[in-house]
Amino acid sequence: MAATDDGSLQRLVGALQRLPGVGVRSAARMAYHLLLHDRSGALELAHALRQAAESVRHCALCHTLCEQEVCATCADPNRDASQLCVVENPADQAAMERAGIYQGRYFVLMGRLRPLEPQDAQAPGWHALQQRVQTDAALRELIVATSFTVEGEATAHALAQLGRALGLRVTRLARGVPLGSELEFVDPGTLAHALADRRPV
Amino acid sequence: MAATDDGSLQRLVGALQRLPGVGVRSAARMAYHLLLHDRSGALELAHALRQAAESVRHCALCHTLCEQEVCATCADPNRDASQLCVVENPADQAAMERAGIYQGRYFVLMGRLRPLEPQDAQAPGWHALQQRVQTDAALRELIVATSFTVEGEATAHALAQLGRALGLRVTRLARGVPLGSELEFVDPGTLAHALADRRPV
Repeated sequence: MAATDDGSLQRLVGALQRLPGVGVRSAARMAYHLLLHDRSGALELAHALRQAAESVRHCALCHTLCEQEVCATCADPNRDASQLCVVENPADQAAMERAGIYQGRYFVLMGRLRPLEPQDAQAPGWHALQQRVQTDAALRELIVATSFTVEGEATAHALAQLGRALGLRVTRLARGVPLGSELEFVDPGTLAHALADRRPV
Repeated sequence: MAATDDGSLQRLVGALQRLPGVGVRSAARMAYHLLLHDRSGALELAHALRQAAESVRHCALCHTLCEQEVCATCADPNRDASQLCVVENPADQAAMERAGIYQGRYFVLMGRLRPLEPQDAQAPGWHALQQRVQTDAALRELIVATSFTVEGEATAHALAQLGRALGLRVTRLARGVPLGSELEFVDPGTLAHALADRRPV
Protein backbone atom coordinates (compact mmCIF):
# COMPACT_ATOMS: atom_id res chain seq x y z
CA MET A 1 0.00 0.00 0.00
CA ALA A 2 2.84 2.36 0.82
CA ALA A 3 3.55 3.05 -2.82
CA THR A 4 0.14 4.51 -3.59
CA ASP A 5 -0.94 8.06 -2.89
CA ASP A 6 -4.52 7.06 -2.76
CA GLY A 7 -6.42 8.62 0.13
CA SER A 8 -9.75 6.89 -0.38
CA LEU A 9 -8.15 3.49 -0.99
CA GLN A 10 -6.10 3.88 2.19
CA ARG A 11 -9.18 4.93 4.11
CA LEU A 12 -11.08 1.89 2.82
CA VAL A 13 -8.27 -0.45 3.91
CA GLY A 14 -8.29 1.26 7.30
CA ALA A 15 -12.06 1.04 7.68
CA LEU A 16 -12.11 -2.67 6.72
CA GLN A 17 -9.76 -3.32 9.65
CA ARG A 18 -12.60 -2.33 11.99
CA LEU A 19 -14.07 -5.75 11.10
CA PRO A 20 -13.15 -8.44 13.64
CA GLY A 21 -10.40 -10.77 12.45
CA VAL A 22 -9.38 -8.53 9.57
CA GLY A 23 -5.77 -7.31 9.57
CA VAL A 24 -4.03 -5.03 7.13
CA ARG A 25 -3.33 -7.79 4.58
CA SER A 26 -6.89 -9.14 4.47
CA ALA A 27 -8.21 -5.59 4.39
CA ALA A 28 -6.03 -4.77 1.36
CA ARG A 29 -7.12 -8.00 -0.36
CA MET A 30 -10.78 -7.18 0.30
CA ALA A 31 -10.38 -3.61 -0.95
CA TYR A 32 -8.64 -4.71 -4.16
CA HIS A 33 -11.23 -7.39 -4.77
CA LEU A 34 -14.13 -4.96 -4.40
CA LEU A 35 -12.50 -2.21 -6.48
CA LEU A 36 -11.19 -4.48 -9.25
CA HIS A 37 -14.01 -7.00 -9.53
CA ASP A 38 -17.10 -6.03 -7.56
CA ARG A 39 -17.86 -2.31 -7.26
CA SER A 40 -21.58 -3.07 -7.08
CA GLY A 41 -20.78 -5.31 -4.10
CA ALA A 42 -18.96 -2.41 -2.45
CA LEU A 43 -21.96 -0.13 -2.91
CA GLU A 44 -24.36 -2.83 -1.73
CA LEU A 45 -22.27 -3.40 1.39
CA ALA A 46 -22.09 0.36 2.04
CA HIS A 47 -25.89 0.57 1.83
CA ALA A 48 -26.45 -2.48 4.03
CA LEU A 49 -24.03 -1.18 6.68
CA ARG A 50 -25.69 2.21 6.84
CA GLN A 51 -29.20 0.78 6.95
CA ALA A 52 -28.38 -1.82 9.62
CA ALA A 53 -26.43 0.67 11.75
CA GLU A 54 -29.41 3.00 11.69
CA SER A 55 -32.30 0.56 12.15
CA VAL A 56 -31.15 -2.50 14.12
CA ARG A 57 -31.78 -2.46 17.88
CA HIS A 58 -32.29 -4.92 20.74
CA CYS A 59 -35.55 -6.81 21.21
CA ALA A 60 -37.16 -5.37 24.34
CA LEU A 61 -37.87 -8.88 25.66
CA CYS A 62 -35.04 -11.22 24.63
CA HIS A 63 -32.25 -8.73 23.81
CA THR A 64 -31.48 -10.23 20.38
CA LEU A 65 -30.87 -7.85 17.48
CA CYS A 66 -33.98 -6.95 15.48
CA GLU A 67 -35.67 -4.05 13.77
CA GLN A 68 -38.93 -4.09 15.72
CA GLU A 69 -39.64 -3.28 19.37
CA VAL A 70 -40.04 -7.05 19.94
CA CYS A 71 -38.58 -9.80 17.74
CA ALA A 72 -40.70 -12.37 15.87
CA THR A 73 -39.90 -15.20 18.32
CA CYS A 74 -40.92 -13.15 21.37
CA ALA A 75 -44.03 -11.91 19.55
CA ASP A 76 -45.19 -15.49 18.85
CA PRO A 77 -48.17 -16.15 21.21
CA ASN A 78 -47.76 -19.94 20.87
CA ARG A 79 -44.49 -19.95 22.80
CA ASP A 80 -44.61 -21.31 26.37
CA ALA A 81 -44.04 -18.31 28.66
CA SER A 82 -43.10 -20.50 31.66
CA GLN A 83 -39.75 -21.55 30.14
CA LEU A 84 -36.87 -19.22 29.30
CA CYS A 85 -33.86 -20.68 27.48
CA VAL A 86 -30.78 -18.49 27.89
CA VAL A 87 -28.34 -18.68 24.95
CA GLU A 88 -25.17 -16.74 24.20
CA ASN A 89 -25.99 -15.50 20.71
CA PRO A 90 -28.53 -15.71 17.87
CA ALA A 91 -26.58 -18.52 16.16
CA ASP A 92 -27.01 -20.66 19.29
CA GLN A 93 -30.71 -19.79 19.33
CA ALA A 94 -30.97 -20.85 15.68
CA ALA A 95 -29.24 -24.16 16.54
CA MET A 96 -31.77 -24.76 19.33
CA GLU A 97 -34.63 -24.02 16.93
CA ARG A 98 -33.22 -26.49 14.39
CA ALA A 99 -33.36 -29.18 17.10
CA GLY A 100 -37.12 -28.69 16.72
CA ILE A 101 -38.25 -29.64 20.22
CA TYR A 102 -38.21 -26.46 22.33
CA GLN A 103 -41.46 -24.51 22.55
CA GLY A 104 -40.55 -21.98 25.26
CA ARG A 105 -39.10 -18.50 25.07
CA TYR A 106 -35.51 -17.36 24.68
CA PHE A 107 -33.14 -14.81 26.10
CA VAL A 108 -30.09 -13.95 24.00
CA LEU A 109 -27.20 -12.71 26.16
CA MET A 110 -25.17 -11.42 23.20
CA GLY A 111 -21.99 -12.64 24.86
CA ARG A 112 -20.81 -14.44 27.97
CA LEU A 113 -19.93 -13.39 31.49
CA ARG A 114 -16.24 -12.82 32.03
CA PRO A 115 -15.79 -13.71 35.69
CA LEU A 116 -12.43 -11.98 36.07
CA GLU A 117 -13.51 -8.68 34.55
CA PRO A 118 -15.38 -5.77 36.12
CA GLN A 119 -19.16 -5.62 36.17
CA ASP A 120 -19.50 -3.21 33.26
CA ALA A 121 -17.37 -5.44 31.00
CA GLN A 122 -19.96 -8.22 31.18
CA ALA A 123 -22.18 -9.49 28.36
CA PRO A 124 -24.35 -6.57 27.24
CA GLY A 125 -27.49 -8.60 27.90
CA TRP A 126 -26.71 -9.52 31.51
CA HIS A 127 -28.48 -6.56 33.12
CA ALA A 128 -31.42 -6.88 30.74
CA LEU A 129 -31.72 -10.56 31.71
CA GLN A 130 -31.69 -9.75 35.44
CA GLN A 131 -34.52 -7.29 34.88
CA ARG A 132 -36.46 -9.73 32.69
CA VAL A 133 -36.40 -12.64 35.13
CA GLN A 134 -37.27 -10.40 38.10
CA THR A 135 -40.35 -8.97 36.40
CA ASP A 136 -41.63 -11.95 34.36
CA ALA A 137 -44.49 -13.35 36.47
CA ALA A 138 -45.20 -16.30 34.12
CA LEU A 139 -41.65 -17.67 34.37
CA ARG A 140 -41.09 -21.04 36.10
CA GLU A 141 -37.95 -22.55 34.58
CA LEU A 142 -34.62 -21.12 33.46
CA ILE A 143 -32.96 -23.41 30.91
CA VAL A 144 -29.23 -22.67 30.71
CA ALA A 145 -27.92 -23.28 27.17
CA THR A 146 -24.52 -21.59 27.35
CA SER A 147 -21.37 -23.11 25.85
CA PHE A 148 -19.48 -25.86 27.62
CA THR A 149 -16.35 -23.71 27.81
CA VAL A 150 -14.75 -21.91 30.76
CA GLU A 151 -16.66 -18.68 30.15
CA GLY A 152 -19.82 -20.59 29.28
CA GLU A 153 -19.56 -22.50 32.61
CA ALA A 154 -19.04 -19.26 34.52
CA THR A 155 -22.08 -17.80 32.81
CA ALA A 156 -24.09 -20.92 33.64
CA HIS A 157 -23.04 -20.64 37.30
CA ALA A 158 -24.16 -17.00 37.49
CA LEU A 159 -27.45 -17.86 35.75
CA ALA A 160 -28.09 -20.67 38.22
CA GLN A 161 -27.51 -18.32 41.16
CA LEU A 162 -29.81 -15.72 39.62
CA GLY A 163 -32.58 -18.24 38.94
CA ARG A 164 -32.42 -19.99 42.32
CA ALA A 165 -32.51 -16.66 44.18
CA LEU A 166 -35.86 -16.03 42.49
CA GLY A 167 -37.18 -19.52 43.27
CA LEU A 168 -37.10 -20.67 39.63
CA ARG A 169 -36.31 -24.19 38.48
CA VAL A 170 -32.89 -24.01 36.84
CA THR A 171 -31.81 -26.69 34.33
CA ARG A 172 -28.92 -27.08 31.94
CA LEU A 173 -28.46 -28.91 28.65
CA ALA A 174 -27.15 -32.46 29.18
CA ARG A 175 -23.48 -33.20 28.63
CA GLY A 176 -22.69 -36.47 26.87
CA VAL A 177 -21.55 -38.29 23.77
CA PRO A 178 -22.80 -36.60 20.55
CA LEU A 179 -24.97 -38.63 18.15
CA GLY A 180 -22.94 -40.40 15.49
CA SER A 181 -19.76 -40.44 17.59
CA GLU A 182 -17.40 -43.37 17.89
CA LEU A 183 -16.27 -43.61 21.51
CA GLU A 184 -12.65 -43.89 20.40
CA PHE A 185 -12.72 -40.27 19.25
CA VAL A 186 -14.72 -38.73 22.12
CA ASP A 187 -12.60 -36.64 24.50
CA PRO A 188 -12.09 -37.98 28.05
CA GLY A 189 -13.96 -35.10 29.75
CA THR A 190 -17.08 -35.72 27.67
CA LEU A 191 -16.88 -39.47 28.34
CA ALA A 192 -16.52 -38.83 32.08
CA HIS A 193 -19.67 -36.67 32.03
CA ALA A 194 -21.52 -39.24 29.93
CA LEU A 195 -20.62 -41.98 32.42
CA ALA A 196 -21.53 -39.90 35.48
CA ASP A 197 -24.88 -38.92 33.92
CA ARG A 198 -25.65 -42.41 32.53
CA ARG A 199 -29.33 -43.28 32.26
CA PRO A 200 -31.24 -46.55 32.65
CA VAL A 201 -32.35 -48.07 29.33
CA MET B 1 -29.59 -16.01 12.07
CA ALA B 2 -32.65 -18.08 11.27
CA ALA B 3 -34.39 -17.03 14.46
CA THR B 4 -34.42 -13.30 13.66
CA ASP B 5 -36.93 -11.54 11.45
CA ASP B 6 -34.51 -8.80 10.77
CA GLY B 7 -34.35 -7.78 7.12
CA SER B 8 -31.55 -5.25 7.35
CA LEU B 9 -29.42 -7.51 9.57
CA GLN B 10 -29.87 -10.36 7.09
CA ARG B 11 -29.00 -8.07 4.20
CA LEU B 12 -25.86 -6.91 6.01
CA VAL B 13 -24.76 -10.52 6.60
CA GLY B 14 -25.41 -11.23 2.91
CA ALA B 15 -23.50 -8.16 1.73
CA LEU B 16 -20.49 -8.95 3.96
CA GLN B 17 -20.21 -12.28 2.16
CA ARG B 18 -19.27 -10.39 -1.00
CA LEU B 19 -15.89 -9.87 0.71
CA PRO B 20 -13.32 -12.50 -0.32
CA GLY B 21 -12.76 -15.21 2.28
CA VAL B 22 -15.87 -14.30 4.27
CA GLY B 23 -18.48 -17.03 4.71
CA VAL B 24 -21.81 -16.89 6.48
CA ARG B 25 -20.35 -17.43 9.97
CA SER B 26 -17.66 -14.74 9.70
CA ALA B 27 -20.20 -12.41 8.11
CA ALA B 28 -22.58 -12.91 11.05
CA ARG B 29 -19.74 -12.37 13.53
CA MET B 30 -18.71 -9.17 11.73
CA ALA B 31 -22.29 -7.89 11.61
CA TYR B 32 -22.86 -8.56 15.34
CA HIS B 33 -19.56 -6.95 16.23
CA LEU B 34 -20.35 -3.79 14.29
CA LEU B 35 -23.93 -3.53 15.53
CA LEU B 36 -23.19 -4.36 19.17
CA HIS B 37 -19.87 -2.61 19.66
CA ASP B 38 -18.90 -0.35 16.76
CA ARG B 39 -21.75 1.40 14.93
CA SER B 40 -19.46 4.31 14.13
CA GLY B 41 -17.11 1.79 12.49
CA ALA B 42 -20.01 0.52 10.38
CA LEU B 43 -20.84 4.04 9.21
CA GLU B 44 -17.17 4.82 8.57
CA LEU B 45 -16.81 1.65 6.49
CA ALA B 46 -19.99 2.46 4.57
CA HIS B 47 -18.62 5.91 3.74
CA ALA B 48 -15.16 4.60 2.78
CA LEU B 49 -16.68 1.92 0.52
CA ARG B 50 -18.88 4.39 -1.31
CA GLN B 51 -16.12 6.95 -1.73
CA ALA B 52 -13.55 4.42 -2.94
CA ALA B 53 -16.00 2.73 -5.31
CA GLU B 54 -16.76 6.10 -6.85
CA SER B 55 -13.30 7.65 -7.03
CA VAL B 56 -10.64 4.93 -7.36
CA ARG B 57 -9.47 4.12 -10.89
CA HIS B 58 -6.39 2.71 -12.64
CA CYS B 59 -3.23 4.78 -13.13
CA ALA B 60 -2.98 5.49 -16.86
CA LEU B 61 0.71 4.50 -16.86
CA CYS B 62 1.26 1.66 -14.36
CA HIS B 63 -2.31 0.33 -13.92
CA THR B 64 -2.22 0.45 -10.11
CA LEU B 65 -5.28 1.74 -8.26
CA CYS B 66 -5.25 5.48 -7.58
CA GLU B 67 -7.48 8.52 -7.56
CA GLN B 68 -5.56 10.62 -10.07
CA GLU B 69 -5.04 10.15 -13.80
CA VAL B 70 -1.44 9.12 -12.98
CA CYS B 71 -0.23 7.77 -9.62
CA ALA B 72 2.42 9.50 -7.48
CA THR B 73 5.17 7.01 -8.38
CA CYS B 74 4.61 7.40 -12.12
CA ALA B 75 4.38 11.19 -11.73
CA ASP B 76 7.80 11.32 -10.01
CA PRO B 77 10.27 12.84 -12.55
CA ASN B 78 13.27 11.40 -10.69
CA ARG B 79 12.37 7.84 -11.63
CA ASP B 80 14.53 6.19 -14.32
CA ALA B 81 12.31 5.79 -17.39
CA SER B 82 14.56 3.17 -18.99
CA GLN B 83 13.64 0.47 -16.44
CA LEU B 84 10.19 -1.01 -15.90
CA CYS B 85 9.69 -3.41 -12.99
CA VAL B 86 6.59 -5.58 -13.45
CA VAL B 87 4.94 -6.68 -10.19
CA GLU B 88 1.73 -8.54 -9.51
CA ASN B 89 0.09 -6.14 -7.08
CA PRO B 90 0.61 -2.93 -5.07
CA ALA B 91 1.78 -4.89 -1.99
CA ASP B 92 4.64 -6.36 -4.07
CA GLN B 93 5.47 -2.87 -5.34
CA ALA B 94 5.56 -1.62 -1.73
CA ALA B 95 7.92 -4.49 -0.81
CA MET B 96 10.25 -3.50 -3.69
CA GLU B 97 10.19 0.12 -2.51
CA ARG B 98 11.08 -0.96 1.04
CA ALA B 99 14.19 -2.66 -0.37
CA GLY B 100 15.26 0.91 -1.11
CA ILE B 101 17.46 0.28 -4.13
CA TYR B 102 15.24 0.45 -7.22
CA GLN B 103 14.98 3.84 -8.94
CA GLY B 104 13.11 2.85 -12.11
CA ARG B 105 9.42 2.74 -12.94
CA TYR B 106 6.79 0.11 -12.18
CA PHE B 107 3.95 -1.67 -13.86
CA VAL B 108 1.35 -3.29 -11.58
CA LEU B 109 -0.39 -6.22 -13.30
CA MET B 110 -3.15 -6.47 -10.68
CA GLY B 111 -3.03 -10.24 -10.92
CA ARG B 112 -1.15 -13.02 -12.68
CA LEU B 113 -1.54 -14.76 -16.00
CA ARG B 114 -3.46 -17.99 -15.81
CA PRO B 115 -1.96 -20.02 -18.65
CA LEU B 116 -4.79 -22.55 -18.82
CA GLU B 117 -7.56 -19.99 -18.98
CA PRO B 118 -8.88 -18.01 -21.95
CA GLN B 119 -7.37 -14.68 -22.97
CA ASP B 120 -10.07 -12.52 -21.40
CA ALA B 121 -9.66 -14.23 -18.00
CA GLN B 122 -6.07 -12.95 -17.73
CA ALA B 123 -4.76 -10.37 -15.27
CA PRO B 124 -6.66 -7.14 -15.91
CA GLY B 125 -3.38 -5.29 -16.49
CA TRP B 126 -1.99 -7.61 -19.18
CA HIS B 127 -3.38 -5.73 -22.17
CA ALA B 128 -2.49 -2.38 -20.60
CA LEU B 129 1.08 -3.65 -20.16
CA GLN B 130 1.34 -4.79 -23.78
CA GLN B 131 0.27 -1.34 -24.89
CA ARG B 132 2.63 0.39 -22.47
CA VAL B 133 5.79 -1.48 -23.52
CA GLN B 134 4.98 -1.12 -27.22
CA THR B 135 4.61 2.67 -27.00
CA ASP B 136 7.20 3.58 -24.32
CA ALA B 137 10.19 4.86 -26.36
CA ALA B 138 12.44 5.40 -23.30
CA LEU B 139 12.17 1.79 -22.16
CA ARG B 140 15.31 -0.42 -22.28
CA GLU B 141 14.90 -3.07 -19.59
CA LEU B 142 11.95 -5.10 -18.34
CA ILE B 143 12.57 -6.34 -14.79
CA VAL B 144 10.30 -9.28 -14.01
CA ALA B 145 9.35 -9.30 -10.30
CA THR B 146 6.47 -11.79 -10.29
CA SER B 147 6.07 -14.47 -7.61
CA PHE B 148 8.11 -17.66 -7.67
CA THR B 149 4.97 -19.77 -7.92
CA VAL B 150 3.48 -21.70 -10.86
CA GLU B 151 1.33 -18.79 -12.00
CA GLY B 152 4.12 -16.32 -11.27
CA GLU B 153 6.52 -18.37 -13.43
CA ALA B 154 3.99 -18.52 -16.25
CA THR B 155 3.56 -14.77 -16.02
CA ALA B 156 7.34 -14.30 -16.05
CA HIS B 157 7.61 -16.49 -19.16
CA ALA B 158 4.97 -14.44 -20.99
CA LEU B 159 6.65 -11.19 -19.90
CA ALA B 160 10.01 -12.43 -21.19
CA GLN B 161 8.49 -13.28 -24.56
CA LEU B 162 6.82 -9.89 -24.77
CA GLY B 163 10.01 -8.00 -23.85
CA ARG B 164 12.32 -9.96 -26.14
CA ALA B 165 9.97 -9.51 -29.11
CA LEU B 166 10.40 -5.77 -28.64
CA GLY B 167 14.19 -6.01 -28.31
CA LEU B 168 14.21 -5.10 -24.61
CA ARG B 169 16.64 -6.46 -22.05
CA VAL B 170 14.60 -8.79 -19.83
CA THR B 171 15.82 -9.65 -16.32
CA ARG B 172 14.31 -11.40 -13.34
CA LEU B 173 14.85 -11.14 -9.59
CA ALA B 174 17.53 -13.59 -8.39
CA ARG B 175 16.48 -16.81 -6.73
CA GLY B 176 18.53 -17.87 -3.72
CA VAL B 177 18.82 -18.27 0.02
CA PRO B 178 17.05 -15.47 1.94
CA LEU B 179 19.08 -13.32 4.34
CA GLY B 180 19.08 -14.67 7.89
CA SER B 181 18.33 -18.25 6.77
CA GLU B 182 19.95 -21.34 8.20
CA LEU B 183 20.63 -23.73 5.30
CA GLU B 184 19.06 -26.58 7.27
CA PHE B 185 15.64 -24.95 6.90
CA VAL B 186 15.88 -23.79 3.27
CA ASP B 187 13.81 -25.84 0.84
CA PRO B 188 15.71 -28.02 -1.69
CA GLY B 189 14.45 -26.11 -4.75
CA THR B 190 15.73 -22.81 -3.41
CA LEU B 191 19.08 -24.38 -2.52
CA ALA B 192 19.37 -25.89 -6.00
CA HIS B 193 18.82 -22.45 -7.53
CA ALA B 194 21.29 -20.85 -5.11
CA LEU B 195 23.93 -23.41 -6.07
CA ALA B 196 23.33 -23.08 -9.81
CA ASP B 197 23.50 -19.27 -9.58
CA ARG B 198 26.49 -19.20 -7.19
CA ARG B 199 28.73 -16.16 -7.47
CA PRO B 200 32.49 -15.68 -7.00
CA VAL B 201 33.40 -13.99 -3.70
